Amino acid sequence: MHAIGVDIGGTKIAAGVVDDGGRILAQSRRETDPERPGEIERAVVELVVELRQDYPIEAVGVAAAGFVSDDRATVLFAPNIAWRDYPLRERLAPHIDVPVVVENDANAAGWAEFRFGAGRDVADMIMLTVGTGLGGAIVIGSELLRGAHGVAAEIGHMRMVPDGHMCGCGHPGCWEQYASGRALTRQARAAAVAYPHRATALLELAGGDPRKIKGPYVTHVAQQGDPLGIELLAELGTWIGAGAADLVAVLDPELIVLGGGVASAGDLILEPVRAAFGDALSARGHRPEPRFALAEMRNDAGIVGAADLART
Amino acid sequence: MHAIGVDIGGTKIAAGVVDDGGRILAQSRRETDPERPGEIERAVVELVVELRQDYPIEAVGVAAAGFVSDDRATVLFAPNIAWRDYPLRERLAPHIDVPVVVENDANAAGWAEFRFGAGRDVADMIMLTVGTGLGGAIVIGSELLRGAHGVAAEIGHMRMVPDGHMCGCGHPGCWEQYASGRALTRQARAAAVAYPHRATALLELAGGDPRKIKGPYVTHVAQQGDPLGIELLAELGTWIGAGAADLVAVLDPELIVLGGGVASAGDLILEPVRAAFGDALSARGHRPEPRFALAEMRNDAGIVGAADLART
Amino acid sequence: MHAIGVDIGGTKIAAGVVDDGGRILAQSRRETDPERPGEIERAVVELVVELRQDYPIEAVGVAAAGFVSDDRATVLFAPNIAWRDYPLRERLAPHIDVPVVVENDANAAGWAEFRFGAGRDVADMIMLTVGTGLGGAIVIGSELLRGAHGVAAEIGHMRMVPDGHMCGCGHPGCWEQYASGRALTRQARAAAVAYPHRATALLELAGGDPRKIKGPYVTHVAQQGDPLGIELLAELGTWIGAGAADLVAVLDPELIVLGGGVASAGDLILEPVRAAFGDALSARGHRPEPRFALAEMRNDAGIVGAADLART
Amino acid sequence: MHAIGVDIGGTKIAAGVVDDGGRILAQSRRETDPERPGEIERAVVELVVELRQDYPIEAVGVAAAGFVSDDRATVLFAPNIAWRDYPLRERLAPHIDVPVVVENDANAAGWAEFRFGAGRDVADMIMLTVGTGLGGAIVIGSELLRGAHGVAAEIGHMRMVPDGHMCGCGHPGCWEQYASGRALTRQARAAAVAYPHRATALLELAGGDPRKIKGPYVTHVAQQGDPLGIELLAELGTWIGAGAADLVAVLDPELIVLGGGVASAGDLILEPVRAAFGDALSARGHRPEPRFALAEMRNDAGIVGAADLART
Repeated sequence: MHAIGVDIGGTKIAAGVVDDGGRILAQSRRETDPERPGEIERAVVELVVELRQDYPIEAVGVAAAGFVSDDRATVLFAPNIAWRDYPLRERLAPHIDVPVVVENDANAAGWAEFRFGAGRDVADMIMLTVGTGLGGAIVIGSELLRGAHGVAAEIGHMRMVPDGHMCGCGHPGCWEQYASGRALTRQARAAAVAYPHRATALLELAGGDPRKIKGPYVTHVAQQGDPLGIELLAELGTWIGAGAADLVAVLDPELIVLGGGVASAGDLILEPVRAAFGDALSARGHRPEPRFALAEMRNDAGIVGAADLART
Repeated sequence: MHAIGVDIGGTKIAAGVVDDGGRILAQSRRETDPERPGEIERAVVELVVELRQDYPIEAVGVAAAGFVSDDRATVLFAPNIAWRDYPLRERLAPHIDVPVVVENDANAAGWAEFRFGAGRDVADMIMLTVGTGLGGAIVIGSELLRGAHGVAAEIGHMRMVPDGHMCGCGHPGCWEQYASGRALTRQARAAAVAYPHRATALLELAGGDPRKIKGPYVTHVAQQGDPLGIELLAELGTWIGAGAADLVAVLDPELIVLGGGVASAGDLILEPVRAAFGDALSARGHRPEPRFALAEMRNDAGIVGAADLART
Repeated sequence: MHAIGVDIGGTKIAAGVVDDGGRILAQSRRETDPERPGEIERAVVELVVELRQDYPIEAVGVAAAGFVSDDRATVLFAPNIAWRDYPLRERLAPHIDVPVVVENDANAAGWAEFRFGAGRDVADMIMLTVGTGLGGAIVIGSELLRGAHGVAAEIGHMRMVPDGHMCGCGHPGCWEQYASGRALTRQARAAAVAYPHRATALLELAGGDPRKIKGPYVTHVAQQGDPLGIELLAELGTWIGAGAADLVAVLDPELIVLGGGVASAGDLILEPVRAAFGDALSARGHRPEPRFALAEMRNDAGIVGAADLART
Repeated sequence: MHAIGVDIGGTKIAAGVVDDGGRILAQSRRETDPERPGEIERAVVELVVELRQDYPIEAVGVAAAGFVSDDRATVLFAPNIAWRDYPLRERLAPHIDVPVVVENDANAAGWAEFRFGAGRDVADMIMLTVGTGLGGAIVIGSELLRGAHGVAAEIGHMRMVPDGHMCGCGHPGCWEQYASGRALTRQARAAAVAYPHRATALLELAGGDPRKIKGPYVTHVAQQGDPLGIELLAELGTWIGAGAADLVAVLDPELIVLGGGVASAGDLILEPVRAAFGDALSARGHRPEPRFALAEMRNDAGIVGAADLART
């Protein structure tokens, strides 16, 4: 049977009809204002109404950045939307006559990779979504790890560096501050200030102003062979790999999937991740190790995963 | 039905008959030489033969420090015993006519707490065993987390401090180097060198020689109100709490059990753990939190857990 | 004889006639645009002309934030003004018929304390100017330490934390990122996000918005007994004291003077500085230690020091 | 005129007659027991008596590891010899009829380089003596920096890593724990545990036992092209260079001289030092920089420097 997956971002909502093979049969989207929860709900309902005209559906899964309660009904906290202990399922259910569930967006994306992407052949995997921030999803024994309260896999807030970079969460040294697109941008800008003669390629793209350097510029120049760009991706990869070694010490997965915008750098990021992971893994050689893979699904992973989770 | 649990330490082996309520009905022990695997096996078999004379048993669980394969048969690596890819179950099975399984010792101890101790009312818990080193056990959905290859929950080797104290595993900054009895001893000795006037109580117990200070001395003087002792336990607790916040970010458990020798300090260690955990937990106030508790079972937890795991 | 001291800030220039006892006899100021070096020079000349109408002067000292060449003529680099290898003395000299020298502003302020303030009785001192950033001045054997190229005492850029907070200079972990008004503001805002229930006093001053908290609010609430404010100042003081211990290991001064805006917190900052210094100083008890004192001169220290240095 | 320099080590004393060009004209040595100060003094006197038979001398300089008072008379504290507030000059003077001064050994060695070695053409230099530990000497304006109390230039105890490796001084993260022969040994042993397949060359020299690896083995295999050896020296050099950048921020010298046993690795250590220094130096490109050089004098630097300092 089909299900609808809805991916609520900060400024737009994307939704799609997904079959039980993870294929998106139809898709639509709306712009929204993160400060107006009511507007977001109306848009979700409209998208569901629109999409189910042509397809029979059995369930709706709604994914959003934030903590979701373990009964998949309430958004406890969302960093980018004005939801605090917000009964999102209860608000949507009266307008949608199939079951509705709410999911964390990184969990949804990771689940899509597990079911239909890079993780489809394993039972235990971790997905690292390295986008603007750093999200995670954990699958153990073919089940999504939700935790006792629904808020597991918030890996971006493991502390990697005591007294390190201050995170938006108010704590220093979070992994997200070292392993994210935002970190890549910060490091690139700093490098352009500290070593301008090595940053000519980056500075050219940024019109000469270090403050205008963006993360994707780094990937771009690295792919053209720029040494600083390659080094910056390697530094990013080093932090991803070091943190992955921590997660592997705890979880011992079979596979680690690297996704998010940074994954578009391909081997330029994956190789340093693997190398740093190998350097950091305790008892290497005395224990089996996970494989690493790039995510196979792209921006639609949230829709596919939310839909699939809604069916279960 | 009853089962026998065997706990193989570095220099001695303890075994007991355990009923299905976690009670030890009979117990025995042997000294052994960690360099002689054959001798260890003979001792295990002797203990089993001795103990089952008076009790019917259905299974034997053998716990030891080290990585154990996911089929619970092979010790991949043991830090303190000369086992490398060692088929321990295969070596024991011909001599024991009930099923034998091999388990990691920290997993066994954690499982005992989960089934019969501080965790008996929860489904998701983490046990931190702060002894000489730092071991862990993770229970998710009432099942022991073994990982894809059997080596999950090696929490002591998460990196807490880049370029930090060198661990015996060859990597710097492992959590175990900050949250263990060995760390407490190191910090106490250093404090006695750096601030001798504040370390008079500790130095008195050590005959005036900072190098002779031992971890338990710290607990002893702290319980008598010595400010440096209290401070050293608080520092230890701070590292335990900070790392616990990392684990909670990943696993979102309902309960964290603090065990091992350090737990004997009671509130002198538990309070700083709780405080540091609260300070370090990301998104505090926006998410449910686990409880903390001291372990209820003592040195026999390994026997009880190994026996109980052998039945399943 | 008298000299004129000129203190060039980012947006304003202050100047004064200073006698050989360090007293300011007359004073004046101008607003300026940091992007227009020519305008700054005209303003300096105007101020000198204005002030010397009523006083005979023998020299002019001009202080500014930045690297100054060892011949006290050229600004090699200024972070806030558009000077790069800028021959400031040469630009001013034709318009001023007494000798002109250029000095680093933190050096000027430190020299004023050494000659007329907290350091007037010692021969070896370090001044830490904890303002928005962190500046330093070093006096050895009653002489200002300029270094081989004129750029000594840039203490704010010693690295305190590998992989720490990114500094405006493009490097991570500079002391300035931990021991400055900017650091205090950052930590206060983060604390208000991470522990809002403890930050009620700070949040009230900031209209409820953590992003609007300012450093002086912390001093204000701390002086009224607010626990978080006191803790934030203590944290700042801990970093100042720890870095001071590094400087003392290198320089072994007789006195450390704490100045800048943060010094207005008095003992609320000085006590934690002393405590952290004592905890961090290697071989304590086996070596003499410096005293700590608050700066005695306030905003005019730059004028007084620049004038006095111009005479020598 | 000639002077005698005496270098008191932990287990032996070396002395020599030094002319005013820094040449050693005659030399002798004695074994000693560091626990017996009286025996050390007798040996020093004997050496002086022996050496001056053939040479007229005007002064004796005695160098030892430890804090020396600013009047060059008293050893305040020695890490390796049983001296605490020990009036060494007063104990020796009655037996030696020329002036005697006591000096810190790293200061003596640095002074020898300044006067007769790599620093003979500069006025401002820092010497880093990377032996078993890390010592320093600072020359400013052609004068040895002694500090207000005689204990300046204890650079090995600047804190490089908060919560880092514990130093023998009782504090964590001292530079000496990262930039010394002892650090090199520790890192090499750890690498051989963590990455045995990369450490075959080192392990061969150590008979297969990681615990028997010694620092000089690293230099040896590196000089033969072993990648791990080169990497370990590079890591050591990175820490030396990073700390040097801190010192340069404070002192702005013209030259940094690298000495001690590690200097025998030549470019294998000097190149990484330079590279790390360049990466870490704040405001690079906007300020003049010091040169780096290897020490030119070897084991006799302490004798030569002590003798020369005795003349001044």
